[in-house]
Amino acid sequence: MLVYKSRQKGKNSTVNWLACIPLAALIGVFWVYAATAQTNPHNPPTTESIQQSLVALKVGLDTLWVVIASFLVFFMNAGFALVESGFCRRKNAVNILTKNLIVFAIATIAYWAVGFGFMYGDNGGNTFIGMKGFFLQAVDNSPATLGEYKGDFPGLSWTGIPLEAKFLFQLVFAATAATIVSGAVAERIKFLAFLLFSFVLVALSYPITGHWVWGGGWLANLAKDAQGATTGAFFDFAGSTVVHSVGGWAALIGAALLGARSGRYTEDGKTRAIPGHSMSLATLGCLILWLGWFGFNPGSTMAADGRLIAHIALTTNMGASAGGIAATIVAWLYLGKPDLSMIVNGILAGLVSVTASCAWITLPSALIIGAIGGVIVVFAVGFFDNLRIDDPVGATSVHLCCGIWGTLAVGLFAVGQKTDIGGGYILQAGAGPKAGLFFGGGFEQLLYQTIGAISVGGFTVAFSFIAWYVISLITSGIRVEGEEEFKGLDISEHGMEAYSGFLKEGES
Amino acid sequence: MLVYKSRQKGKNSTVNWLACIPLAALIGVFWVYAATAQTNPHNPPTTESIQQSLVALKVGLDTLWVVIASFLVFFMNAGFALVESGFCRRKNAVNILTKNLIVFAIATIAYWAVGFGFMYGDNGGNTFIGMKGFFLQAVDNSPATLGEYKGDFPGLSWTGIPLEAKFLFQLVFAATAATIVSGAVAERIKFLAFLLFSFVLVALSYPITGHWVWGGGWLANLAKDAQGATTGAFFDFAGSTVVHSVGGWAALIGAALLGARSGRYTEDGKTRAIPGHSMSLATLGCLILWLGWFGFNPGSTMAADGRLIAHIALTTNMGASAGGIAATIVAWLYLGKPDLSMIVNGILAGLVSVTASCAWITLPSALIIGAIGGVIVVFAVGFFDNLRIDDPVGATSVHLCCGIWGTLAVGLFAVGQKTDIGGGYILQAGAGPKAGLFFGGGFEQLLYQTIGAISVGGFTVAFSFIAWYVISLITSGIRVEGEEEFKGLDISEHGMEAYSGFLKEGES
Amino acid sequence: MLVYKSRQKGKNSTVNWLACIPLAALIGVFWVYAATAQTNPHNPPTTESIQQSLVALKVGLDTLWVVIASFLVFFMNAGFALVESGFCRRKNAVNILTKNLIVFAIATIAYWAVGFGFMYGDNGGNTFIGMKGFFLQAVDNSPATLGEYKGDFPGLSWTGIPLEAKFLFQLVFAATAATIVSGAVAERIKFLAFLLFSFVLVALSYPITGHWVWGGGWLANLAKDAQGATTGAFFDFAGSTVVHSVGGWAALIGAALLGARSGRYTEDGKTRAIPGHSMSLATLGCLILWLGWFGFNPGSTMAADGRLIAHIALTTNMGASAGGIAATIVAWLYLGKPDLSMIVNGILAGLVSVTASCAWITLPSALIIGAIGGVIVVFAVGFFDNLRIDDPVGATSVHLCCGIWGTLAVGLFAVGQKTDIGGGYILQAGAGPKAGLFFGGGFEQLLYQTIGAISVGGFTVAFSFIAWYVISLITSGIRVEGEEEFKGLDISEHGMEAYSGFLKEGES
Repeated sequence: MLVYKSRQKGKNSTVNWLACIPLAALIGVFWVYAATAQTNPHNPPTTESIQQSLVALKVGLDTLWVVIASFLVFFMNAGFALVESGFCRRKNAVNILTKNLIVFAIATIAYWAVGFGFMYGDNGGNTFIGMKGFFLQAVDNSPATLGEYKGDFPGLSWTGIPLEAKFLFQLVFAATAATIVSGAVAERIKFLAFLLFSFVLVALSYPITGHWVWGGGWLANLAKDAQGATTGAFFDFAGSTVVHSVGGWAALIGAALLGARSGRYTEDGKTRAIPGHSMSLATLGCLILWLGWFGFNPGSTMAADGRLIAHIALTTNMGASAGGIAATIVAWLYLGKPDLSMIVNGILAGLVSVTASCAWITLPSALIIGAIGGVIVVFAVGFFDNLRIDDPVGATSVHLCCGIWGTLAVGLFAVGQKTDIGGGYILQAGAGPKAGLFFGGGFEQLLYQTIGAISVGGFTVAFSFIAWYVISLITSGIRVEGEEEFKGLDISEHGMEAYSGFLKEGES
Repeated sequence: MLVYKSRQKGKNSTVNWLACIPLAALIGVFWVYAATAQTNPHNPPTTESIQQSLVALKVGLDTLWVVIASFLVFFMNAGFALVESGFCRRKNAVNILTKNLIVFAIATIAYWAVGFGFMYGDNGGNTFIGMKGFFLQAVDNSPATLGEYKGDFPGLSWTGIPLEAKFLFQLVFAATAATIVSGAVAERIKFLAFLLFSFVLVALSYPITGHWVWGGGWLANLAKDAQGATTGAFFDFAGSTVVHSVGGWAALIGAALLGARSGRYTEDGKTRAIPGHSMSLATLGCLILWLGWFGFNPGSTMAADGRLIAHIALTTNMGASAGGIAATIVAWLYLGKPDLSMIVNGILAGLVSVTASCAWITLPSALIIGAIGGVIVVFAVGFFDNLRIDDPVGATSVHLCCGIWGTLAVGLFAVGQKTDIGGGYILQAGAGPKAGLFFGGGFEQLLYQTIGAISVGGFTVAFSFIAWYVISLITSGIRVEGEEEFKGLDISEHGMEAYSGFLKEGES
Repeated sequence: MLVYKSRQKGKNSTVNWLACIPLAALIGVFWVYAATAQTNPHNPPTTESIQQSLVALKVGLDTLWVVIASFLVFFMNAGFALVESGFCRRKNAVNILTKNLIVFAIATIAYWAVGFGFMYGDNGGNTFIGMKGFFLQAVDNSPATLGEYKGDFPGLSWTGIPLEAKFLFQLVFAATAATIVSGAVAERIKFLAFLLFSFVLVALSYPITGHWVWGGGWLANLAKDAQGATTGAFFDFAGSTVVHSVGGWAALIGAALLGARSGRYTEDGKTRAIPGHSMSLATLGCLILWLGWFGFNPGSTMAADGRLIAHIALTTNMGASAGGIAATIVAWLYLGKPDLSMIVNGILAGLVSVTASCAWITLPSALIIGAIGGVIVVFAVGFFDNLRIDDPVGATSVHLCCGIWGTLAVGLFAVGQKTDIGGGYILQAGAGPKAGLFFGGGFEQLLYQTIGAISVGGFTVAFSFIAWYVISLITSGIRVEGEEEFKGLDISEHGMEAYSGFLKEGES
């Protein structure tokens, strides 16, 4: 999201746009027609009615974009479910599918009840956590925000869409963070433990660090001048840090605390490959995630700004393509074969890598950032295995490592304000980060990015430790018994199997 | 759909918007640019050209929303195909996939040829069936409808989008009703019998009851005052009754007439579980349906009304989430395990349950309605098994039982007119049902809802009995032979198998 | 795409719309609100600010439509991956999935680097190939094009959306052509050979023939009057020729050069059926492609023209439905059973068949065109087998045969200019082809269509021969060894298997 703070600059209008609300609510579907009763010479449109029609069209158009982008991001749940279950064994497929299916329902309740309020609710200026709008009980300043009053969600006051559209888009983001965890802890976590962790992650941890960055918290105001105006900030356009590395850190802690799957690492220090049960599902999942990212990144404009949306769609796609190609090449050279699971993860790595910077970089930069992401992910998978941290689907490599890389990339590749990022799109003053190191901006923005990556990571690690610990007390440990793991979680946790009519290996 | 009737109230304008049509058709893509030739001081825009641009933008925006929503609903065909085939056995997968694939093609022809005309065509005021616009040969009153002339499709005159966009959206709804039947009659119906039933359902039965509710028929005018103005009506925003319970009743009759699958019920009265062949496909299908419902419900605004779309997307999502969580809990307590197939059906149950009321209820109400749907579906599955009505995928439990529940829920939870449903959206006078029982409205609306549920159900049951009977004469019974059922419909009806290269259970 | 040429007619305005660009770039998200500060009596909106708002809304709306359509077309990659892998054997699934996944990444690089420039870049009027805008380094004339200056991409100057949105939409089209090849060469091609061919197809061949038709090349100016004004042209609205038959020709040459899969044709001249490994995946893929076509065809308006979008969505859907039903009937009569793979291909055949003409035909014509496509595909599959050209998924039958048929169908069924195609949509003078043979236009348009189909086909065939030959030198032949083919490409090319935990046929 374009950080709201910058949007507020230069707004010295005294117009109170709240005055529009009841009017806008009343005019409903008839407005344009009514405002433009052209064939009735006795009722020509007035300047005021034209204004109302323009505002209503603008709000309708922006909202349409944001809800459609939300649907695409929602569909990423299917992508995650397929990638994660495809990469795991047949005997755990029901468990993973169930986790990925129900986690969105849990996230809906958690984020509606408290998460959204913690992340965006007005709090009288504290920079740590929001404190209003639980159960969505608050007043927004839609449909427009030029006035002084920022509504009860000042962190989202820069976009003029209805509050419920803002919530919907933020909800699908929050759920993504929880979904990331699912893959890393797969094949040995207790079902209930995962549900509880998802709930607290979406209800509390994700919103707090999210508040710091997108809710107007301290990371959005890192440097100030003598008058208290913000002069420097951490920037994360669509969530390399806010969503992906948060999910990745939580996943890492979970995977580390759980320990490796039985048989994953041999006594002589080797890593034993445990092939996934369906590369078809995993590949389809990857393409669904790629599709969903076209909502994730371009949708973060939260307004139907055609030029910016088109540019972000291209940087996003370039990141995915470069990540996929780089991973193909590296896997081919390094592993000897063009490994499909590495290509899948390379594409996702490229996507995560450009997520933070997608609105502020050129297309060649997107290519470089994505390609580096695709290289990182191949080696990260080996790195975690060397640490004996067993992540069955590579979620940590993709979301954590590339989330951090993507965050830092803002400090390297951002073009800076008042600069054409391509396609004639010129970033407005105050919108977005300062120029990165490679674009003449020195180390300043890179420093802010580093501070953000570390602080969000640190909080999430601490929170995750505590949360997993408390949950393990509630569920008598978070890991299933060895016997259950051997039989598979489908039978032991759900009493059913994923596939019927297909003879299992080992049977005859 | 916001019922059209209410839209007509208060329209005493004598403006004939039909006058816009040829103009709007001509201005094409140049209109806005042409209307706003700003740099040409000799050709300033006129009030009239601004009006034309505003109308064209409004029509374009609304149409965009409706066609995109239609695409999402179309995609539900994939969702149904996957849920239904995933829940059935490997040996019948080709058959179910074929049915779900071709049924949309058949629905397209049936609804274009006659269905749409029966449902929405002008009929000079009879309240039972429409009678114009077969093969889409009729004149619409788009792009605006403030005048007295309602066009040849008065039931859809309240939305200003082009006729073909209206048809597209209605078509994908009609096809959904037929798809619902497919699951309940799976694994033993003759392929041709299903095709014929689908055709007559979409061509005749669905349109007639649809006419009663959405086409301006008698259910849309249940109570009248002395002047003949409608004072009370049955309301079904997006089709809990019109689509889901219609499909559900037809499915129930089909499943009952077919009899249970061989081996489903043992002689000592037990129900034998017949596991589905792929929970991966079923889960993916569930997520596709959830996605599609974001077109189904919010799209039923048939206009890009951002505030209402966002609210409906949230009530829809809340219903799904609550249904999924409720089914998880109930299945866990009642069946001993968090059963994935129950969670899938719980989510669908929640979605069906909020479909009728999604535009007229608050978020907490959506949570309650969806949760109750999720509870209903778990027990309904057992209920039908006790009746020895064998529905392999639970379509009847989901679409019929929750369709009825959702319909009644309007009479319980509707906030009433001129009330804020959340997010500042205030229902206009005349738009939507009266306040429900729990919102101070007494039993009036609940009575209308009951009348609607019963009358639509009664007609569909009678029609289905006759249709299945006539079809059974044509196809020499609607059920395949025992031998064919044993071998599987894939071999007996299609001469092919769904999977190759995977050893079957029982083979070695 | 509506051919740009016709759009230029009648443009004698001297307004230079380039003047808008910096302004439009600056006004950003605030424009409408700023332009309509209604409650501030000291700052009423001016005519100029209203104009700016209207243009910005129009550009935003058009861009939204085009990017969403692009996402739908992008998703067709998943559809192709599933249809192709589902129709192939288990032992080659990883290979096909990998090809279809990475091909979009390769297409992205190829089309960005050079393809788009060859296809649409300004070239000073030569009619063979474009020559500007490599790496997207060029200036567009967006947001409006009424002036004399056409920008660096004159072939796309008729649509006012940002350059990067134009590129995105064209990119997803280009990638489709490469994806088509994948299926026909499946199960025996070397992975690297396919990657190289995809690159040159998207970088060079597709753009050149695309330039002829959509880039303002010679096929878009087939006949001229004495003054040099174009009086006749080849027309292909969304790419039956430009995309599908190009992909189909390249696929045919590849399949022919590769030779048949081992065991496909017996020594006594029989064709041995090689069943696909998953009809579930293939069917899902078909529905995803059907969905994607709603972006492919209606999106080719490249503007949010509601009436035309709705009409094209209906002709597209009618073509698919008629193709599916026709293939069902023909397969039932001809093969004895309603064969699911034929129905899948029949639907795709119907879609390809209406792609060229979808904007210029009536609904009944779409039904006829699609149905004929569905008949063609069933017989074409047998035809190629008789030629001993082994196309495992029927890609040639669908995309080449029906691509040609669809192209010719324009010359038969086009309604002609200034004619209502349905829904009150009247084609503007100069927009689209002349009336076809069956609509009173004689043979003129049919002749143009024939010239286009032959010339594009001829070039693609010649290019493909050369390309496959050069690649075979690089990769030491394009076909894998017999041993590798027997083991399956998954093991031999990728060192992994698609499925784990499912016992293979032949194992025990």
